Amino acid sequence: MNESYDSAPQYDLVVIGSGAAGHHGAIQAAKLGKKVLVVEQNSAFGGATINTGTIPSKTLREAVVRLTRLREASSFAAEHAIAQRSLARRIEQVASNETAVFEDQFRRNGVDTVFGKASFAEPHLIRVDSTQPVHFYKADRVLIAVGARPAHSEVVPVDGLSVIDTDAIRNLPPRRRVLTIVGGGVIGVEYACMAAALGLSVTLIERRARILEFVDFEIVEALSYHMRGRGVTFRLGEEVDQVSTSAEGKVCATLKSGKKIWSDALLYAVGREGNTDTLNLAACGLEADSRGRISVNQDFQTGQPHIYAAGDVIGFPSLASVSMEQGRVAVCRAFGEPVISVPELFPYGIYTIPEISFVGNTEEQLTTEGVPYEIGIAHYREIARGQIIDDTAGLLKILFHRESRRLLGVHIVGEGATELIHIGQAVLAYQGSIDFFVNTVFNYPTLAECYKVAALNGVNRLKLAGPTSIQGARVISPG
Amino acid sequence: MNESYDSAPQYDLVVIGSGAAGHHGAIQAAKLGKKVLVVEQNSAFGGATINTGTIPSKTLREAVVRLTRLREASSFAAEHAIAQRSLARRIEQVASNETAVFEDQFRRNGVDTVFGKASFAEPHLIRVDSTQPVHFYKADRVLIAVGARPAHSEVVPVDGLSVIDTDAIRNLPPRRRVLTIVGGGVIGVEYACMAAALGLSVTLIERRARILEFVDFEIVEALSYHMRGRGVTFRLGEEVDQVSTSAEGKVCATLKSGKKIWSDALLYAVGREGNTDTLNLAACGLEADSRGRISVNQDFQTGQPHIYAAGDVIGFPSLASVSMEQGRVAVCRAFGEPVISVPELFPYGIYTIPEISFVGNTEEQLTTEGVPYEIGIAHYREIARGQIIDDTAGLLKILFHRESRRLLGVHIVGEGATELIHIGQAVLAYQGSIDFFVNTVFNYPTLAECYKVAALNGVNRLKLAGPTSIQGARVISPG
Repeated sequence: MNESYDSAPQYDLVVIGSGAAGHHGAIQAAKLGKKVLVVEQNSAFGGATINTGTIPSKTLREAVVRLTRLREASSFAAEHAIAQRSLARRIEQVASNETAVFEDQFRRNGVDTVFGKASFAEPHLIRVDSTQPVHFYKADRVLIAVGARPAHSEVVPVDGLSVIDTDAIRNLPPRRRVLTIVGGGVIGVEYACMAAALGLSVTLIERRARILEFVDFEIVEALSYHMRGRGVTFRLGEEVDQVSTSAEGKVCATLKSGKKIWSDALLYAVGREGNTDTLNLAACGLEADSRGRISVNQDFQTGQPHIYAAGDVIGFPSLASVSMEQGRVAVCRAFGEPVISVPELFPYGIYTIPEISFVGNTEEQLTTEGVPYEIGIAHYREIARGQIIDDTAGLLKILFHRESRRLLGVHIVGEGATELIHIGQAVLAYQGSIDFFVNTVFNYPTLAECYKVAALNGVNRLKLAGPTSIQGARVISPG
Repeated sequence: MNESYDSAPQYDLVVIGSGAAGHHGAIQAAKLGKKVLVVEQNSAFGGATINTGTIPSKTLREAVVRLTRLREASSFAAEHAIAQRSLARRIEQVASNETAVFEDQFRRNGVDTVFGKASFAEPHLIRVDSTQPVHFYKADRVLIAVGARPAHSEVVPVDGLSVIDTDAIRNLPPRRRVLTIVGGGVIGVEYACMAAALGLSVTLIERRARILEFVDFEIVEALSYHMRGRGVTFRLGEEVDQVSTSAEGKVCATLKSGKKIWSDALLYAVGREGNTDTLNLAACGLEADSRGRISVNQDFQTGQPHIYAAGDVIGFPSLASVSMEQGRVAVCRAFGEPVISVPELFPYGIYTIPEISFVGNTEEQLTTEGVPYEIGIAHYREIARGQIIDDTAGLLKILFHRESRRLLGVHIVGEGATELIHIGQAVLAYQGSIDFFVNTVFNYPTLAECYKVAALNGVNRLKLAGPTSIQGARVISPG
């Protein structure tokens, strides 16, 4: 260690990145009484969560949903209204407010912060490059929470004009009418829904045989049906061979099957890669995989015992909510602090139109594990509030154990899904049975009533299947 | 019993009325294998819930909320859009769909139905008058679920034109700009919110010192603040002495304090009275009170052991959700069927703008009972989704036991309150503590996150109050 290193400030924890994982990790460490430094390479805290990903896309989505509802009910032109709403300003406003919240929490919890590009000088020494002179910081422990960025492909030359990635979609010039989206994961499908709701003609290309492959099949089917109804064309099991741009700025995607798909713009949304290339991981004895991701064990610990990683940089599921939890848990584990975290109860929220959310087991899992389960379904259109909001696509499905009637999973597609899932999550957490829903009084009219309707549907299915295999089910005999 | 009575069909249960309580009671009895007849005096099933109250007002509310959001974001004239949406047709559509659901459920469960005016001929004999010849039905047991109608007052001459009651508000001609509402209960306040959101100038007159007196004070304060922001004038602790209409159709309400309040229309919304006047209760040895209500014990049994009553006809709270439950429980009790019903877990939903909902204890109750409690608060504006939907008035308050940290109550005002309350309701039902919220991963961004923020706020309050009185709270010592 040379002289300039000796004078480097010493921290219990240096967090690289201030997005969902980094922010939550830093605050958790501060609450444990640790001396914490957060290094952020951009000019504002919050990472992709606040600045390029979650918050901007969800603010956009909210505007789109409101406009769509309106358009369905009347004849206003969506574009006109979009302009009126000064959407960009609104996103700016929400994002800067959230950044301020992060900043305020850092300050109140005594977390030091520095802007600049972090890299490893040694396993316990972090170098920060910025417009200021280079600084070094000694770190007892490190949390890598650098996030991820859109992955690129050789065959899809992103030019930021007609061929863009998801970081650039906010800058997509208006007057594009036909959009091709490559990638049927969460981000690709979310943007496909928004674009379709705004009246664009959308083609979605996905290499796999289905979109959102980690989501319950029936739920995806309902979403797909709804998307098709809005004019989305799916090209599943197809791969892009080549993308070219014409002189007039039209984009042509040639698929391996030979199909040519012309559009005004193409959004490339096939996965993300970790922002690890500038970290100089070699200096700490770590290595990223081909997509820039870092491997961790179940404690979020990397191959170096004092270095932890959390958030998008470790890969799936790349959800802000889960990244926050990972940051929190990683720091507790790093400092030997007991922490309760039950991944089985993590909800998944996908902000498609309509929304999707689920928690607990899927049918596929239960089938694989040989658990005897039954399902109960409620369609939004069956309940009063579904009628009132005119959501005919909405669907809530519960999975429960055939014998104990214990709730095993909840899967929802429809308005408010990401909120409603938390009712089921609480019942799952307390290992409750579907009889809870049967016996509960729900506000009327609400979408939450779907839980009751689904539970009653499930009970009926048990009866139809015959009482012989059922324990604990009360079968009412005709009087 | 004379001859025509002898040939009267015999039923295990005759249900008078097909609204929320009657419908649920009838279906429950059918599921118990009983022979059931429902008598409905109107031409469609569903009572006030579907035809004049809940469904129409909530459908109207949904349209108003959507329009309001739009108007705030742009410059469209609300009236224009209202006309476009053909609101009346929409209400008709939702209501007739719900009626069809009721009808279908009656049929599928083998419930007989007859349209006509029911009255008691004898304690076990129901007479039904309609355009058909008079019919009689023998009833082993009876469920009175006749509902209620707007109460009238001598000093407020309802003419259906400028002075109306809540049953007639759908027919209120447009072009009314100034509205006086008498009554600060649920219905009066719900309509005051809708009218204000549509841009009408509203004065709300309430005899008591506050509106919605059974609701948590802080929640009402937030609602009132929001309503005032929309131009509602409150006249609390004031009573109407006289109402007169000018030649030009303007209405003048003179208060006992001497104030005169002029408006284009006056809505009288002071309570409701039971529809018992035509039941000929004397024939079964029962009597209604001065507001037409029937007294019942905790089993919903009237003074006549074989006659039960449920829903609005027994008074407070007059919520469709609770009436459904009352109908179900009353029938189970009537036939000696065990039934689980926990009134402490009933949610209250008020469809003001913003919505209000609560479950469990109020601060007032806990104070009276001497329970050591603490509160935790989250403002919608503190969380990302609150920012995205721009709900600055939203507020979620949890009450919990200071020592055990057990959740005791949840009170919400803000968008989605009637849905969100069910998360807290589940935790209450399982006697969970606020640590559940602290340790739970919520979808991001959602309003449900308010539970976590409120729980963390509550934990902080415990710490500020000092650790001495706290058992079970884990106080993290600075490292």
